[in-house]
Amino acid sequence: MKPLIGTDLKRFLRQYRRDHPPHRELAAILQSVAYPANVGAAFRLAEATAMSSLLLTGITPTPPHPGLDKVARFKADRVPWRYEEDAATAVAQMRAAGYHLVAVELADGAQVYTAYTYPRRVCLVVGHEDHGVTRATLAGCDGAVFLPMYGKGRSLNVAIALSIVAYHALHAPLPPE
Amino acid sequence: MKPLIGTDLKRFLRQYRRDHPPHRELAAILQSVAYPANVGAAFRLAEATAMSSLLLTGITPTPPHPGLDKVARFKADRVPWRYEEDAATAVAQMRAAGYHLVAVELADGAQVYTAYTYPRRVCLVVGHEDHGVTRATLAGCDGAVFLPMYGKGRSLNVAIALSIVAYHALHAPLPPE
Repeated sequence: MKPLIGTDLKRFLRQYRRDHPPHRELAAILQSVAYPANVGAAFRLAEATAMSSLLLTGITPTPPHPGLDKVARFKADRVPWRYEEDAATAVAQMRAAGYHLVAVELADGAQVYTAYTYPRRVCLVVGHEDHGVTRATLAGCDGAVFLPMYGKGRSLNVAIALSIVAYHALHAPLPPE
Repeated sequence: MKPLIGTDLKRFLRQYRRDHPPHRELAAILQSVAYPANVGAAFRLAEATAMSSLLLTGITPTPPHPGLDKVARFKADRVPWRYEEDAATAVAQMRAAGYHLVAVELADGAQVYTAYTYPRRVCLVVGHEDHGVTRATLAGCDGAVFLPMYGKGRSLNVAIALSIVAYHALHAPLPPE
C-alpha cells in the first residue's frame, strides 16, 4: 500500500462519492459551543459531510475568527452557516424546514447513538463544553443520543462526539418508509 | 427529557457498560502526530474506549505536557501508553502482541471504514497532520481504511478521524470465527 496524493487522491474520493451518495441530509445546531477550535472542527466536519446548514447560537464564536478558521482549514466559506442568538428559535426553524432534531447529550431517555432510528433529514444538536444542551433546548428535540463511555470519563470532546454521530448517521441504513 | 447529572449520570453510563461490553479490544499508534491538542484528544478517546495501549512514536509529544493534558482532561494517567521512537518497531510490537493493524489513511487499496472486517483485537494507526501514515509504516499494516469526504476537503482532523473509526470498530459486529 502507498499513500494516495494529488490527482489520484482527488479521483479516489470523487469516485467514492459518486458510487456512494450519503443516506441522509445532515445539519447541526451548536448551542453556545465556547471554544473556537471546537467550532472550527464542526465547520470542517460540516464541509466533509455536506451539511445543509450549521446554526451557531448563544456564545458560539462565528467566522471570521482566526482560531476557528485555522482549525476549519478555511472551509467556513463553504458551509451554509448562520448565527441565531436563541437556540430555541434555531430548533424551531430547523423543525419548520423538515428536520428531525436529535440532541447529542446524556439525557434521561437518550438512546445509544448506534441504536437510534434516524430519518432522512437529521439536525444534530450539541451544547457547551461544560453545560451541554440545555433542558429548554432538549425539550424542543425529537430525541437524544449518547456515546458509550468505557472509562472513568463522562464525555468526549463536543466536536469529536458530533463527528462520531454525524458519520454514523450519514451511513446508517434508512428506516423503512 | 432532562440532562443527566451527578450520580444519575454515573449510574446510567455504568449500566450501559455492563449491559453492552465492547466487541473489540482496541489500541492505537500515533505516528508523529505533531499537535499536543490532537494527542490530548487521542488520550481522551483512548480512555473512553478503554484502549489497551496507546503508542506514541516519532515527534508525537508525550505527557506530561500542558497542552496535551488539558485536552486529555487529565486522563493521560489512566491510559496505558508508551513512547517508541520508531513507528515500524511499534507496529512490530503490536503485531507480536496479537493485534491486527489498520491504518486510517487514504492509501491505494484502502477500504471505506464501515466496510472493513475488523477482527477482535485491532490497533489503529494514524499519522502526522500533513503527511499522514508513511509508506514504510503502511507496509507493516494489515489494511487501511478511509473516511468518505463529501466536500472539497480531503481529510478530517487526525483525532476526529481516529475517533470515528475507533467508535465504529468498538461496535461493529464481529466476523464469524
